[in-house]
Amino acid sequence: MGRTIVVTGAYGFLGRHVARCLSKQGHIVLGIGHGEWLQEDWKFWGLSEWKRSDVTLQALKQYAGEPSAIVHCAGSGSVPFSIQDPLADFERTVETTAHVLEYVRTSAPSCRIVYPSSASVYGNAETIPIREVCPTVPISQYGTHKLMAEQMVTSYSRQFGTSAAIVRLFSVYGCGLRKQLLWDACRKFSNNDYVFTGTGNEVRDLLHVEDAATLLMTATEHASPTCPTVNGGSGHGVTVRDVLLHLTSILQTKGVPTFSGTQRTGDPTRYIADTQGSKAWGWLPTRQWAEGVEEYVTWWKRNFL
Amino acid sequence: MGRTIVVTGAYGFLGRHVARCLSKQGHIVLGIGHGEWLQEDWKFWGLSEWKRSDVTLQALKQYAGEPSAIVHCAGSGSVPFSIQDPLADFERTVETTAHVLEYVRTSAPSCRIVYPSSASVYGNAETIPIREVCPTVPISQYGTHKLMAEQMVTSYSRQFGTSAAIVRLFSVYGCGLRKQLLWDACRKFSNNDYVFTGTGNEVRDLLHVEDAATLLMTATEHASPTCPTVNGGSGHGVTVRDVLLHLTSILQTKGVPTFSGTQRTGDPTRYIADTQGSKAWGWLPTRQWAEGVEEYVTWWKRNFL
Repeated sequence: MGRTIVVTGAYGFLGRHVARCLSKQGHIVLGIGHGEWLQEDWKFWGLSEWKRSDVTLQALKQYAGEPSAIVHCAGSGSVPFSIQDPLADFERTVETTAHVLEYVRTSAPSCRIVYPSSASVYGNAETIPIREVCPTVPISQYGTHKLMAEQMVTSYSRQFGTSAAIVRLFSVYGCGLRKQLLWDACRKFSNNDYVFTGTGNEVRDLLHVEDAATLLMTATEHASPTCPTVNGGSGHGVTVRDVLLHLTSILQTKGVPTFSGTQRTGDPTRYIADTQGSKAWGWLPTRQWAEGVEEYVTWWKRNFL
Repeated sequence: MGRTIVVTGAYGFLGRHVARCLSKQGHIVLGIGHGEWLQEDWKFWGLSEWKRSDVTLQALKQYAGEPSAIVHCAGSGSVPFSIQDPLADFERTVETTAHVLEYVRTSAPSCRIVYPSSASVYGNAETIPIREVCPTVPISQYGTHKLMAEQMVTSYSRQFGTSAAIVRLFSVYGCGLRKQLLWDACRKFSNNDYVFTGTGNEVRDLLHVEDAATLLMTATEHASPTCPTVNGGSGHGVTVRDVLLHLTSILQTKGVPTFSGTQRTGDPTRYIADTQGSKAWGWLPTRQWAEGVEEYVTWWKRNFL
């Protein structure tokens, strides 16, 4: 039977996929956050209502009703942005989480919270694959803010018995994502630019956004005052070079990618998720990265070529 | 030669002592924060100016001038308050720190930041005395927020080269403190109430507020982009029972303290600072706890008996 679930940041890349996933399972989904879109668009993405607002205690009290769960997708989603404007990054990621938690504590104590965190909390992990118990030593403002938000969530669980779950998402990608590796590469290739920062040997764990959405939905079932924390990844690593080579082969580009050798600030070198935690929830990713990249290229070509 | 130093939260117990300490060393001290006091009072405490305001980026831009250092004493100072109103505690402790950091990054990049953190970031430490490298696992909202603020400070140092230093203060006490053990006990005893929560065997590392102030002043000299973090304690532990027995003997109370045996939420059992870090800075505490308690009682009697 459907329940009412609030998705904050539902206009965003992750948020809209989460909303649609929940809606397909019969839930009533209320969206709140920033972004101007037409009713037909937010309805298409599964929202029953869309409230354009800051994610604050007051706004949640006014609009959230009595949801059974909140998936808190609002927040910054970019390491470069966190370096350009760290205070705004803090406000989007940490402050909104403080308000969501306080809303639940004061107005909806039985509501479950799912927090989509990020593998960036690990920084340069020493052991691969990365287990959830690994030290959290973020190397970017973005990762620091995600970790701070996590700490507040676990602190509310411990102190107030708030039911919560944290999912540390690895490299989420999919059609519609207008940033990060695939996006940057498609744009570069179309300008006959083949030079990338880094070495190409960086390892990423790519997770299709629809798989990320099903995992976050699963997390709503496992939220509890013990605040379980699981990785959200495929469990498989792929090098940036291999992703780009696959892209060039699909796009039949004239050049081949080359690498400057310089590491981008805040970019760790190797990320692969240990997925035992999410597997124990009965969740498995369904999409292979190579097929996901092909789908992405199709979307990109349709919209931008 | 004196420099201009900003003390946020200068109206508070710690802040005013820091202000006076800096002023005595010839610095020009600007105070900003909440609290309504007479000019003769804030002048007495060493301030050249007092600006009553939230500690925000905008207020700092407007009033802080170009200080050589900021000692960021603003913030919540109470575990019980952090449980009653965790969002306000977050705003006072974490948000103000985000604004101070951003002010320095954008408007005063050569300004040093000293952050008075708290031993509460350690939670129930496994080894005593507690070294700065011990795991930080806070067990209260208050401790969580102090840790979050620390993480932002270290993150700014790493990312933007901000010169900073963190001092994790243990149990700071002294005349004028109207909360915590000595205050509660003096009030109870004057009401012939001798029952305390806890076991009495809790161990505290008491640091006189004037010693805390000299340590924070010393920290302004050691702030750097490596963001050194040191404990602020005496290095000596004393049980709550011994403190209370000393109090009863000074006050010549009729009863003796007894203990309920129940632990107060968020209160760790044993805290003693390892002081190698602060010693390496050439700082040493000058006050013994027994003498400090006597001074406190004198103050308390003069004002409240």
